[in-house]
Amino acid sequence: MLSTAESDRLRVVLVETRNPLNIGAAARAMSNFGFRHLRVVKPYAPAFREARSAVGASSVLARAEQFKSVEDAIADCALVVGTSAIRTRHLHQTVRRSEGAARLIRRRLRSSNVALLFGSEKRGLTNDDLSHCHWLLRIPTHDENISMNLGQAVAICLYELIREARIPHEPEKLPLASAAETERITAMLLDALHESGFLDLRRVADSEQRIRRLVRRLHLPARDAVIWLGMFRQIVWKLRSGQPSQD
Amino acid sequence: MLSTAESDRLRVVLVETRNPLNIGAAARAMSNFGFRHLRVVKPYAPAFREARSAVGASSVLARAEQFKSVEDAIADCALVVGTSAIRTRHLHQTVRRSEGAARLIRRRLRSSNVALLFGSEKRGLTNDDLSHCHWLLRIPTHDENISMNLGQAVAICLYELIREARIPHEPEKLPLASAAETERITAMLLDALHESGFLDLRRVADSEQRIRRLVRRLHLPARDAVIWLGMFRQIVWKLRSGQPSQD
Repeated sequence: MLSTAESDRLRVVLVETRNPLNIGAAARAMSNFGFRHLRVVKPYAPAFREARSAVGASSVLARAEQFKSVEDAIADCALVVGTSAIRTRHLHQTVRRSEGAARLIRRRLRSSNVALLFGSEKRGLTNDDLSHCHWLLRIPTHDENISMNLGQAVAICLYELIREARIPHEPEKLPLASAAETERITAMLLDALHESGFLDLRRVADSEQRIRRLVRRLHLPARDAVIWLGMFRQIVWKLRSGQPSQD
Repeated sequence: MLSTAESDRLRVVLVETRNPLNIGAAARAMSNFGFRHLRVVKPYAPAFREARSAVGASSVLARAEQFKSVEDAIADCALVVGTSAIRTRHLHQTVRRSEGAARLIRRRLRSSNVALLFGSEKRGLTNDDLSHCHWLLRIPTHDENISMNLGQAVAICLYELIREARIPHEPEKLPLASAAETERITAMLLDALHESGFLDLRRVADSEQRIRRLVRRLHLPARDAVIWLGMFRQIVWKLRSGQPSQD
């Protein structure tokens, strides 16, 4: 949904992150969803060093910029959004659920840089950090456990930015068997049912139609038509041969 | 969006997971989004032990069930969905993007158990695992890096299940200042602009209306009205006192 130019206007800002795995996880999610600009503010120095030197550290991490203050890290952004697990924060600031927040961020990314701030694992964003934010985003977590892992929270926020609002119901579907193929399979199944005595045991007036509808409800993929026909044909042949099965 | 009964019908199934941190992360995301049934199939035994004994291990993890095969782990489920980063898997199975997939899973959860399968960190789900699945879900990752961290993938799938499709544009908003308060602030600002000579320097016919519109565009929160009025009043007082400022 976002163009490359739009994705490149987002700055993911990690403030005072302690755990190198979380810095790495944030960078990995950015790479998964096509975002490139990672900024870290006052990271715990050994954590930042360890994250950057980890095996498989992404190019996102290699290019990450380090800042001494939130103010410096967001200086080139026209919209600054903080993340928080708390619902209202005593109404100091407007809190938007992630679903609606993403729409506003996407709209701003069309023309301006946007910063998305994540606080430390222990405390989240401080009131001072939050005072730089235009509004807050919260992921709608369950009341019993509102606090998310940092790497997972970053992944969900970025996913929400790239997800398509309107996905057609139809998936990347398998082509279905043609009516002719389906009818050949139905005929062969009916033969097997006649030969096996199944239809004699359950005698109803419209048994053929019932079986026909039964097969249509399977939505047989085109690629499977030949094998189904082959299986039923073999069964019919065996039934007609009158020989007991070998095992 | 899901009721507790519906959430309780989901089984998150981790197949041959190696890293205890990933098992813990999956359990944490489940707890964040209100899901309770975690099943692990042939986990790397030390990883499962370590994950369960970790400090702060959730009740989800404590109640996790262990299975010897995928078949056993999904036996009570009417819909089995595998996760895969690959787009078509040679068209062996239908692949749905997460956005649309979630809708189908939610619908099934109204009445039946659903299993959501995640493969090992290294290989994902094997072809044998996949043969138990009705269809596959993929998170729409960027071509440059399609492979997600397991804990982050679980979090995104569960988030997609609980997110609200229709969030009104309006957030949990701050109440705005009344027209009367806004007009008092406007009047005080105009006084300050007159006293400071600002309006004399930029003389236009409709200057008062321009300033009035300017203030309205701020969408002043009700809670801030008093402080803005106080700040402008103090500025006007100082301007009228004719005394130079102290610093």
